[in-house]
Amino acid sequence: MTEFREGDRIRVRKGTERGEVVYEGQCPPTVSRTLVIKLDSGYNIGLTPEHVEIEVISRLGSGKGKEGMDEVVEKKGEKGRVREERLPVLSILSTGGTIASKVDYRTGAVSPQFSTEDILEAIPELGNMATIRGKVVYSILSENMRAAYWKKLAAEIYNEIKNGAEGIIVTHGTDTMGYTAAALSFMVRTPVPIVLVGSQRSSDRPSSDATMNAICAAKVATSDIAEVVVVMHGSTSDDFCFIHRGTKVRKMHTSARDAFQSINDVPLGKVYYDASDIRALRIERCSTYKKRGQQELELRDTLEERCALIKFYPGADPGMLECFVELGYRGIVLEGTGLGHVSAEWIPHVASVVEQGIPVVMTSQCLYGTVCDRVYDTGRDLLHAGIIEGEDMLPETALVKLMWVLGQTTDMKEVRALMHENLMGEIKGRRVKE
Amino acid sequence: MTEFREGDRIRVRKGTERGEVVYEGQCPPTVSRTLVIKLDSGYNIGLTPEHVEIEVISRLGSGKGKEGMDEVVEKKGEKGRVREERLPVLSILSTGGTIASKVDYRTGAVSPQFSTEDILEAIPELGNMATIRGKVVYSILSENMRAAYWKKLAAEIYNEIKNGAEGIIVTHGTDTMGYTAAALSFMVRTPVPIVLVGSQRSSDRPSSDATMNAICAAKVATSDIAEVVVVMHGSTSDDFCFIHRGTKVRKMHTSARDAFQSINDVPLGKVYYDASDIRALRIERCSTYKKRGQQELELRDTLEERCALIKFYPGADPGMLECFVELGYRGIVLEGTGLGHVSAEWIPHVASVVEQGIPVVMTSQCLYGTVCDRVYDTGRDLLHAGIIEGEDMLPETALVKLMWVLGQTTDMKEVRALMHENLMGEIKGRRVKE
Repeated sequence: MTEFREGDRIRVRKGTERGEVVYEGQCPPTVSRTLVIKLDSGYNIGLTPEHVEIEVISRLGSGKGKEGMDEVVEKKGEKGRVREERLPVLSILSTGGTIASKVDYRTGAVSPQFSTEDILEAIPELGNMATIRGKVVYSILSENMRAAYWKKLAAEIYNEIKNGAEGIIVTHGTDTMGYTAAALSFMVRTPVPIVLVGSQRSSDRPSSDATMNAICAAKVATSDIAEVVVVMHGSTSDDFCFIHRGTKVRKMHTSARDAFQSINDVPLGKVYYDASDIRALRIERCSTYKKRGQQELELRDTLEERCALIKFYPGADPGMLECFVELGYRGIVLEGTGLGHVSAEWIPHVASVVEQGIPVVMTSQCLYGTVCDRVYDTGRDLLHAGIIEGEDMLPETALVKLMWVLGQTTDMKEVRALMHENLMGEIKGRRVKE
Repeated sequence: MTEFREGDRIRVRKGTERGEVVYEGQCPPTVSRTLVIKLDSGYNIGLTPEHVEIEVISRLGSGKGKEGMDEVVEKKGEKGRVREERLPVLSILSTGGTIASKVDYRTGAVSPQFSTEDILEAIPELGNMATIRGKVVYSILSENMRAAYWKKLAAEIYNEIKNGAEGIIVTHGTDTMGYTAAALSFMVRTPVPIVLVGSQRSSDRPSSDATMNAICAAKVATSDIAEVVVVMHGSTSDDFCFIHRGTKVRKMHTSARDAFQSINDVPLGKVYYDASDIRALRIERCSTYKKRGQQELELRDTLEERCALIKFYPGADPGMLECFVELGYRGIVLEGTGLGHVSAEWIPHVASVVEQGIPVVMTSQCLYGTVCDRVYDTGRDLLHAGIIEGEDMLPETALVKLMWVLGQTTDMKEVRALMHENLMGEIKGRRVKE
């Protein structure tokens, strides 16, 4: 291998399925398993040194260089045919979480410490699938995620797409990934894939799911699925990932690798994975979805953060509703029992909250199935009190949607109409009968 | 068929698998599909007129009668062998819910209107499986169930068993059946089966699951499984019911017939059902359980009702903890994210609540999997703040258990120890590694 050191400008030739690709850029401080080059655009790309041909263009301090381009210049395709081709441009936005974590051997605990560069170093295959840009937006454990952070993240995604990203990967802690996926679904109308990915086991553990999840995420981010999706292990084996619609996905296990599940809907698809042959990656579509370029990029990031999710249980004191009103909440999602119930003594309290101009949305703690308040007395009394039926929305998605809807309008008629409308695939029951 | 009318004393002979059984009692006001006789014990039994031989002993007002016995007197067994045998005595305690409901054709809504007598009338097969005693304890929709009602129900069950019931069936609305099953598990140490059963579709609808669920429940109530269990459809077909342990079961669908699932444990067993042949009923055991007569009957029904279940979500205001303290709550169960997390800003609030002598138990909104607060910083900080890990308990079961534990002791060390102890099968992780 050609010798080079930090700061050298180098040219790297890489054979791909579709021909040869050339990158130029500056050599970073460290070269370990992966070669991470800083391209002139400011983005980083990760490559496996053994799989590429490296040429030093200029040594650090030689005054030369910078004349090259970021990427591209295809040479010879397979079978000698010459054609222009390039890898798609993906932006990886890191927010923290286990996929960006490693075990602290001092404490035995896991904490987020990796930058995007570290992710590229850990998963060099990503560099063979796309031209990777990277940015650390947050380095937080996802239980600390909140509406204000969604706004910044949505704006960063918007800017990346505006600046030419052909797909977005958001690395995210798994704890609240479902909430963030729902939030981004409403906040960003996207012409390209926006893929949230995480891992249940940190990447320095043998059982880590980080690599496979990230590679499958990159496959989806370079596909034609222009929606906000979550890509995570689909089984306990390393054979496929599911592509879950962002408004229908939920973490359903504290630790299993196949923790994420689509609720009340089939996943959009699967990504078949074979660790021994990265070219065998294959997407199987299971549902309809918005296609790449189908809609214009748009950022609608105003949220009303003061929305509460309240789970009902036998004997729950309806006085807690007043607590939330006093704390300044502007919208409430109830997680009722069964078809969408609370005890009879709650009904006048619900009516009072609604009368104060605070919408109350009913979802079900069953998670599966559709809310229907027309079957039993309690439900009909709740409808009379002004409750908005959450249809088959996840309680978490209904919460995020209510935050977003109240960010668009405070007119209660419009709020009600928008909550009932299937905006981003969050209401399945509207289209397909159970 | 012999003619008889209200108030007549009649003797009914019924062929069973094990020979002939004779009942004597008073004819009720109405005879429809089912013949319901009032036995001298005051209990009712339901029989199918076509399947029995009826003899009038005395007409109403004739002054005769009352000399007979409640039941028994076996005549000829199969193959002509004569032997003494009797049906087991089951008590059906009705609390309301869909299994005891019918559609109000005026409003189109479903409301609970049936008495135990009505259930027997609707499901005559029950009378062929056991000598049925019946009592209406409540006629409520189960979202109105609460701790105070659990106490009365537990006391009624206790009395029934004390008075010779060899099995208990509790008909219950499905909305909060899981909570009640968990509550009864802790409140009644039972030497006989206590089976909760309900239906997702009312019994006058063609798709009703009431009959099959009730028959399977009776099968379990006459079995050797001396635990509090929920018996409900195991699939969308009418082929089997699951027997779920009361502390591990959850309603997981708003309307499907197979809504009930055991979480973090396998069901105790299955009851195979064939509508065309009631004798084909068969229990398949899938787990270990307490056997009939293994433990002494005991009622421990003191509960601390002021316990709250709070679900965390991104940006949730920790100020709500103070609300619950001000409302007089004495225990709190948190439904955190992932392995058992809340945001960092919650931690001092949790510590403050614990310092006030209010235990805080952490469960996971994932539902599946085990809470483990030793992996991430947040969890370790929560442990330091005094949180009690809820292991793999359902949030709902942890809430009910905390109510029960605080009814036994207010010593925080004991509370902590009891919450960690697997008392009634509510903690599976303690015994079987994931």
